[in-house]
Amino acid sequence: MRATVIYGPNDIRVEQVPDAAVRTPTDAVVRVVLACICGSDLWAYRGVAKRQPGQRIGHEFLGVVEATGSGVTSVKVGDLVVAPFVWSDGVCDFCRAGLQTSCPHGGFWGEPGSDGGQGEAVRVPYADGTLVKLPAEAAGDERLLTAMLALSDVMSTGHHAALAARVRPGATVAVVGDGAVGLCGVLAARRLGAEQIIALGRHTDRTDIARAFGATDVVAERGDAAIAAVKELTKGQGAQAVLEAVGTEESMRTAISIARDGGAVGYVGVPHGGSAGVDIGQMFGRNVALGGGVAPARAYIPELLADVLDGTIDPSPVFDRSVSLEQVPDGYRAMDERTALKVRITF
Amino acid sequence: MRATVIYGPNDIRVEQVPDAAVRTPTDAVVRVVLACICGSDLWAYRGVAKRQPGQRIGHEFLGVVEATGSGVTSVKVGDLVVAPFVWSDGVCDFCRAGLQTSCPHGGFWGEPGSDGGQGEAVRVPYADGTLVKLPAEAAGDERLLTAMLALSDVMSTGHHAALAARVRPGATVAVVGDGAVGLCGVLAARRLGAEQIIALGRHTDRTDIARAFGATDVVAERGDAAIAAVKELTKGQGAQAVLEAVGTEESMRTAISIARDGGAVGYVGVPHGGSAGVDIGQMFGRNVALGGGVAPARAYIPELLADVLDGTIDPSPVFDRSVSLEQVPDGYRAMDERTALKVRITF
Repeated sequence: MRATVIYGPNDIRVEQVPDAAVRTPTDAVVRVVLACICGSDLWAYRGVAKRQPGQRIGHEFLGVVEATGSGVTSVKVGDLVVAPFVWSDGVCDFCRAGLQTSCPHGGFWGEPGSDGGQGEAVRVPYADGTLVKLPAEAAGDERLLTAMLALSDVMSTGHHAALAARVRPGATVAVVGDGAVGLCGVLAARRLGAEQIIALGRHTDRTDIARAFGATDVVAERGDAAIAAVKELTKGQGAQAVLEAVGTEESMRTAISIARDGGAVGYVGVPHGGSAGVDIGQMFGRNVALGGGVAPARAYIPELLADVLDGTIDPSPVFDRSVSLEQVPDGYRAMDERTALKVRITF
Repeated sequence: MRATVIYGPNDIRVEQVPDAAVRTPTDAVVRVVLACICGSDLWAYRGVAKRQPGQRIGHEFLGVVEATGSGVTSVKVGDLVVAPFVWSDGVCDFCRAGLQTSCPHGGFWGEPGSDGGQGEAVRVPYADGTLVKLPAEAAGDERLLTAMLALSDVMSTGHHAALAARVRPGATVAVVGDGAVGLCGVLAARRLGAEQIIALGRHTDRTDIARAFGATDVVAERGDAAIAAVKELTKGQGAQAVLEAVGTEESMRTAISIARDGGAVGYVGVPHGGSAGVDIGQMFGRNVALGGGVAPARAYIPELLADVLDGTIDPSPVFDRSVSLEQVPDGYRAMDERTALKVRITF
């Protein structure tokens, strides 16, 4: 089969690899229908996050079950399914508590020895714990499929940020970052009842999506000017809930600075190094809390899926370009150069 | 009147100072009956936290109202009252939300221009917002007075840590630090229904108090050995709620390390410098949240006072030495040398 392989910085290839196959009774094989490229894949593409040369890549996919191990009971051949961006056994203490990202048997698509999501098929470990069945009739609805693909990571991650930031009905919310996760964070905040949602971002094509997703205000400034602008929009007090969806020192510093005293920052941007902009002295005096991390998408997919199916939320606009599998290297380039927001891969 | 004044590192004196007096209609003057020395006063004593030479010091006191400004309505001359460790106006958005430490008119006892708690009397700004009336009949009960004095800071701060760490009924809790705040954190965690409470501390006289306050286990090790010991006591998973009551890099690192995935660290130890041991990379992957900060004692005193009065909690054992006002410099020395846990000042 064909799959995306990373060899090093800026070196993404689509190659012939061994066919995905059931290896243990709890495995399933999913034939991929839709996949995509994540902002976090760019950390590997840019060489900031290390990968072994020849490692698979991609952690968001949706497809049809092609084979199941003898122990798989929750999905069967022919089922349309979506996978969260980590697999998990579904039965351990953490899985049952809804923190599947801490499952001791869990793993991340593309890690050495596993298939990545950006390929024709994927061996799914712990299929019962990992996969979520989608309605078969969705198969012909491209917009709906695209919206459901967002559940594998960006929509679930935006929701995680909103929960960690303690978004409540009526809350004043700020979202740092206009990437796909930040935009989904806007959508998640609106879904949770936020009244004022301030989107921080410089790209009008993206902040236009933010407005469509429910942002009431847009702040295009950065750094101190952004902090001042958010204060101005919030009677000098800052936002009760701040979603940090970038993962740089500057974005974290901004997020903490624009949080209202007693408020919370929900961070889902992958931090790169040390304290990552966290100023504990500032947090202490103002009682600003910090929560979040890697999103347990598996826990959120059923709830968010229901809202996608009934039209309450539609995250599909975060995908602004489509490529074929063979064009995936072009997709990485486009996202790296910011000419695309989020690239969908069709099969 | 006589009051404690700090001139520099290790230079605490008791001197003649101008009498406390009502200056604005919202002031009251409280004649101090009991005060004490705080672990955080030692940061100033040791020169780590800067003070202007001649600044007053002390932020925990209980006493009798001696005079009130014309605008004060909630307390009257002769009332027995306790003060939280910051004053606040009681009417702003933050005060009404229970975050009096962020009151724009608030301040900290002993800051330049204000009286400190370690003196014969204190001018209390915003008396209506600040002071909490105590039952007059408590005046003759030394143990009860001492327990109520703990509400001004350490008991309220321990409670704040427990709330920030999200202690729930049945929870597994760890408390880093065997100072007065850590011990009060144990008491607060038990009060909130924690099932297992692991106290980390090396001083058996202190951990004995922790056990009396509800600790089910004591870990005397530090650093990696402490982390291993807590893991061992928690089936390898760590504590769901961790109270950090020290404020050093090592204690914060320990606190984050012993938190269970998905758990929270409630920190109230005053951080000294930068990231203060916060490893965001470790927090991210394990979804460990961090909350807390300076405790809004004013918000908690009424609730905790009720439990002190009915005997549900008794924090008085954290005071293990008493001095007169003139002996306050000896009290600082004793706490600095760790021959006293918390020193009470009687008048």
